[in-house]
This record gives sequence, structure tokens and C-alpha cells, in this order.
Amino acid sequence: MVNEKAYQHGSQRSLIRELFEYGRQRSAVVGRDAICDFSLGNPSVPPPAAVHEAYLSLLESGEDMLNHGYTSAAGCDELRSAVAGSLTRRFGMAISPENVYVTCGAAASLSSCFGALTLDAQSEFVALAPFFPEYRCFAEALGGKLRVVPADEESFQIDFAALEAVIGPHTQGVIVNSPNNPSGVVYTAETVRKLAQLLEEKSRQYGKVIYLISDEPYRELVYGDVEVPFLPAYYANTLVCYSYSKSLSLPGERIGYVLVPDCVEDSRRVFDAVAGAARLLGYVCAPSLVQRVIARCVDVQPDLTVYTRNRNLLIDSLSAMGYHCARPDGAFYLFLRSPRGSGAEFSQLAKEKDVLLVPGGGFGCENWLRIAYCVDTATVERSLERFELLQGK
Amino acid sequence: MVNEKAYQHGSQRSLIRELFEYGRQRSAVVGRDAICDFSLGNPSVPPPAAVHEAYLSLLESGEDMLNHGYTSAAGCDELRSAVAGSLTRRFGMAISPENVYVTCGAAASLSSCFGALTLDAQSEFVALAPFFPEYRCFAEALGGKLRVVPADEESFQIDFAALEAVIGPHTQGVIVNSPNNPSGVVYTAETVRKLAQLLEEKSRQYGKVIYLISDEPYRELVYGDVEVPFLPAYYANTLVCYSYSKSLSLPGERIGYVLVPDCVEDSRRVFDAVAGAARLLGYVCAPSLVQRVIARCVDVQPDLTVYTRNRNLLIDSLSAMGYHCARPDGAFYLFLRSPRGSGAEFSQLAKEKDVLLVPGGGFGCENWLRIAYCVDTATVERSLERFELLQGK
Repeated sequence: MVNEKAYQHGSQRSLIRELFEYGRQRSAVVGRDAICDFSLGNPSVPPPAAVHEAYLSLLESGEDMLNHGYTSAAGCDELRSAVAGSLTRRFGMAISPENVYVTCGAAASLSSCFGALTLDAQSEFVALAPFFPEYRCFAEALGGKLRVVPADEESFQIDFAALEAVIGPHTQGVIVNSPNNPSGVVYTAETVRKLAQLLEEKSRQYGKVIYLISDEPYRELVYGDVEVPFLPAYYANTLVCYSYSKSLSLPGERIGYVLVPDCVEDSRRVFDAVAGAARLLGYVCAPSLVQRVIARCVDVQPDLTVYTRNRNLLIDSLSAMGYHCARPDGAFYLFLRSPRGSGAEFSQLAKEKDVLLVPGGGFGCENWLRIAYCVDTATVERSLERFELLQGK
Repeated sequence: MVNEKAYQHGSQRSLIRELFEYGRQRSAVVGRDAICDFSLGNPSVPPPAAVHEAYLSLLESGEDMLNHGYTSAAGCDELRSAVAGSLTRRFGMAISPENVYVTCGAAASLSSCFGALTLDAQSEFVALAPFFPEYRCFAEALGGKLRVVPADEESFQIDFAALEAVIGPHTQGVIVNSPNNPSGVVYTAETVRKLAQLLEEKSRQYGKVIYLISDEPYRELVYGDVEVPFLPAYYANTLVCYSYSKSLSLPGERIGYVLVPDCVEDSRRVFDAVAGAARLLGYVCAPSLVQRVIARCVDVQPDLTVYTRNRNLLIDSLSAMGYHCARPDGAFYLFLRSPRGSGAEFSQLAKEKDVLLVPGGGFGCENWLRIAYCVDTATVERSLERFELLQGK
């Protein structure tokens, strides 16, 4: 009576949500302070003060129609202009408002790109493990397929031989996510250059454009002097999917954009296809008030104080205990190699000590676990003794 | 290189948007006051004061995580409870929070229902002219088909013989929209009873459930003592798609819900399928702050003063001039029979006098035009002389 695939997706929670719900129930029993919940990538710091001020000043402006009325499907002019201006200043590439399609967050950005680039049931998108499991939903929703390249578990950069083996005549796009969820790894400029070279070769070989889809909600969350390469500067046929969820701590507000720069071949046509896919998926426009809020905050940087402290504390302590992690240059995730058994097995052991870690299997890395350290520092401190016990066991 | 259907949908504006954009450009030339723009269904009255107060008090509460964090995919508990409570009080049917799936507005509600109920490429949904043309996008996006029943142009109730002829073994759902866009007509209780009877017969005949999908963003916008029947009370297998866009003047905020009442056969399964379809379409959750705003405003009624005045002024004046309209009991639309030629032809004549009316062809009624009277009253007053001239011509 109902669509079976939709039913499956609606009745089965993701593993992450499952663990988070377990944590909620468990804290009702043992108390919130007894749980170390590292399951969810929900920013733990409040939005910057500028966001709050923008909300209040807009609401007090009395501009009800501008605040709450329909915007163009592509977003309100002021936000598209602000984003274009900011990107132009930051990355030295001329971006105009017409290159920016405002969306209901990263998931809508990705769905619209996949929809735009799915030609038929043979169309393929390539994800590189470890990868966000919802990519599969979004790629398949409008009829495409997802293929996965296994991780290089030494560096968590790209295993180019494995990637090359997966790209074929039906490959429409390769999705990258750097800084990465779940590994926290940032692709180096060298990785990006090699990737661009491979995609150019393969595009020539198959006589078609293979798009690079850059999912980058964690762009602003990097530590030390790490730089995140701006991919359109390396590979022309790049679509950038951005979200303000993580950088401005607004994950519930559903606001982001797709950037289709002029260097993309036939860029107007690609932009229109993204717009059309969004329309087919039922997106009318991104929420209006928050569009105007973001227009006033495009250059506001996140406060990384808490994440930096948590990250350093975890790296130093876990390393001293003999744990091994992927190089955590960005996002708010630490990717831990299970010291014993699979990630799922170790997650279970940790759960018995009320430490909630997401096993890496869902991300394509069976022997790893994700620690989302977007929590208060007291939670990290409380967890250390338990990590010690878990390691020694 | 891109999906052709997505490209078509992204590059071709809807006729309504086209006319609205023309109006914007034209007013830059002749001045805003020279144009009578009746093209867009964008509420012209500000949101009720309670909405504004809820925004401010939530922002000042300092509850940043609750205001801006992820909610459950189905919506935050407080909104689901508030909606369930309000529906239970208003319609005398026990509705629980678990029956309410919060969405990014009416389009997302409809897309998720169509997605949930599309079994394969043969699945059909039936729309009754006049109907909102985006239904076709939403029904086809996940692989279904839309079939259209011609209007009964006498009453704009339902032509049951025509509806019966269209329902077949692949019919998954019938979509109704009362109060109607574009006609402003409200289905009577008698119409709804007959509809329920036909759907029950046809469900039996084909040995399957045929769902009624009730798209009702205009439920609160009715005039005089007209009542809008609550469809689940008449037909058990009804899914209600609601939006706060029109009633609370928040069309840009993208907030609504799907109601799957317990009387729906296998209602948990249907609910999960709606949730799964939403997930596949890339919806993570509805925007969070506005969810909490609505939770405080579910019983706030719209201020109909301006719409009532505009409606009465138009009906009285146009009738006196000899125009004929559908019975305008609800929404903020008047559906006008073209006094000469097709709706498109008359729209062109009106456009030459800077009166912007949407021709009815896109809604499935070639000889009619939609007047969206959600404008300031001065615009209506200014238009009357021109309607007089257009009629006399």
C-alpha cells in the first residue's frame, strides 16, 4: 500500500539517531552527568552574538513581508549578493549572485545537485569512504546510484588507484567532504591537485564532464594553520554545497547554498538544472527570515575555543593511552581506530560504560569509531578515565 | 550533461512567477501605483502580533540549542503536541502528537505524501481542476503520474461522473484543495460525503486503499458562516497536508505538517512512509525556530479584515459590471470567467491596462482567470475603472 523504500527509510532510524535516542533514555535513568554522549554532530556552542543581533534587528525592523514572505526560489537578492561578495573576497575567484542558489541546508544542496546530474538509472555518483551515509539516500532518490571507494586507512587522503577503478562511463559526479565527517581529516592541496588531474583525464577518456561535488559544511572548522583548498580553483567543473549549520551553530534552521561558478562548463544550464531539481523535490524557497539573518553574517567566524580545547584534550589523552586516531585537522570529529575488535564491538564495550561512540561501519570503515567532540568540556574530562579502562581491558 | 526534466523545471518560470516578474519590471517604468498586480498568492497582511511576540520571547529566552538545533525529523515535541491538541479540540477527533509529521510547508507535505504512496511508475494521483499546477511536479518527481478531472464550471464542486471515469486500478490517491486555489470555492459537506462514498466504492472495487490527500493551506481563510468540513471525519483514509503560510502570513518560513490520523488503515506504516519519503527528498527537519513559534500560535486566527473588504468590493463591483465569478467562499482568490475569448486572451487585454491576472489554463480552466486579492485595498479600488473599461470593450 505504501512505497517500500520510503517505509524502510522512515521506520529505520540511522545508527547515529539510534545511539542518540538511547543516550536520552539512558540519561533519564542514570542522570545526564553519568553519560558521555559523543554520538551527534550537533554544535555545542551557541550561535555567534552577531546572529542573535541580526534576528532581533530584523524582527524589530517591522519589514514583515521581507522577513516572512516568499523569496525567489534561488534565494533573496541580499543573501545571494552577500555570499557572492564574501566568496569573491576570500577565494579570489569572481563569483556573482547568479552563481549562488540558496537552499534548505546541506541535505537539500546535495539532493538538488544529485537530482540535476542524474541522467538515467545508470547514472553513478562516487563517494569516498569514510562518508556520510545519507549520501546514498540523496543519490538514489531521483534514480541514481552510489558507488563507494574504500578508505586509505593510513592517511585518510584519497586512494587514487581505488578511485580510478570505480570511475566509469556512467560516473556523473564524485563527492568529497573535507574537512571530513567522520574522520576530521582535511584534504591537502596535493590531494586536491591529483584529484583534479584524475577527473580531467577521466572526463577526456569518457568524452563527458565528471563533476566534483564538494560537500563542505565544516569548511570554517579547522585547527592550527590548516588551509582548506577552494576546489573550483583546482577543478573547473566543481559544484560547492555549503551549509551554515556547523559554522554558525544553526543546524535546525536549514540554510545553505549550492555554488555553480562560471568555470563550470555550460554553467547556466547546470545552475538551472539544480534549481529545477530543487523544485521537483518540493523546495519552494529556503526559510526567509534566516536568509536575511545570514546575509548580515556571511563573514562571521565560529568561536572554536571549546572545540579546540576538547580536541586537544582528547588527542593528548587518547594518544598517551595508546589509541590511534586519524589526523584531526578539522570538523569536530575524532576518528578512532578500535583497539580491539570491530568498531561495532568496541562501541558496545564503550556503551556499557555509558560512553556513546558511533561505529565506523556505516561510514564505510568497519574498524573505526567516530567521537563527536561538540560537547561541553566536562563531558570530555569525565570520559577520559573510562577510555583508560576501555583501553586496558 | 544534466537531467533534462530538472533543466526544464529550472529554466522555465511558472506563468504566475512570469507575470509577477513582469509586474516588478513594469512598476519600475510606470510606478508601483500604476500597476494593479493580482498575480501572486502572497499574503498582504502582516503576521498576527502573537507570532511576532513569540519570535521575540524565544530569542530572548537564550535557549539557543532548542531554538536553532536539530529537531527530530518529525518535528519538535512541543509543536507536535500543540498541533495535536488544537486539532483534537477543533474537530472532535482524538489526534496524538504521533499522528503529526512537521514539514517545510505545503509543498514538502505534498511531495512527502506522493513519495510515500508511489508504488511504481504506474501509480496515479488524481487532481480535480482547477488545481495548483505544481501538483504535477510533486506527483511525478518520485515516479508517479498525475491525472486530471475536468472542472464542473457551473458550481466548481466535483463532477463525479468525470472523477469516476478517471479512477482505476493504479489510482493511489485523490488530491483535493478546499478552500480552493484558484477558485476560492469551498466543498460543501454534501460534496465531501459523495466523494467519500465514491472512494469507498472504488477502494472496494479495486481491493486496495485509495487515499484522499487534502491540501488545505486555506482552511482558516473563509468568509461569512461557511464551514470547511474536516475530511478524516468523512473518509477514514485521509492524509491532511497543512501549511501556516497563508493563515499566519508566513509563506517564506516553510512550515506545515502532514496529519496521518489513526483512522487511516495501517496508519503507523503510512506515517513511516511519509517520514521516509521526506528523508529521501533531503528534508532533515523543518526550520527549528519557527517550529517553536508556531507551537505558541496554533490557535491564532488570521485577521481577515482586509481580505473581506477586498473580496466584497470586487464581487459587488464586478457583478454590477456583468462579470461572472465562481462562488468565493474562501482563500483570497476570485475566479473570473473571461467575458471575451480565452483566459489567456483576456489576461493579455488586462495586462495592456496594467492589470495583472493569471489565466486559468495552467489550473485546467482555459476560459477563466484568477484574481489574487491579497493586495492593499487601494489596488482593488484603482482596478475597478479598468475592469469597467475591459468589460465594455
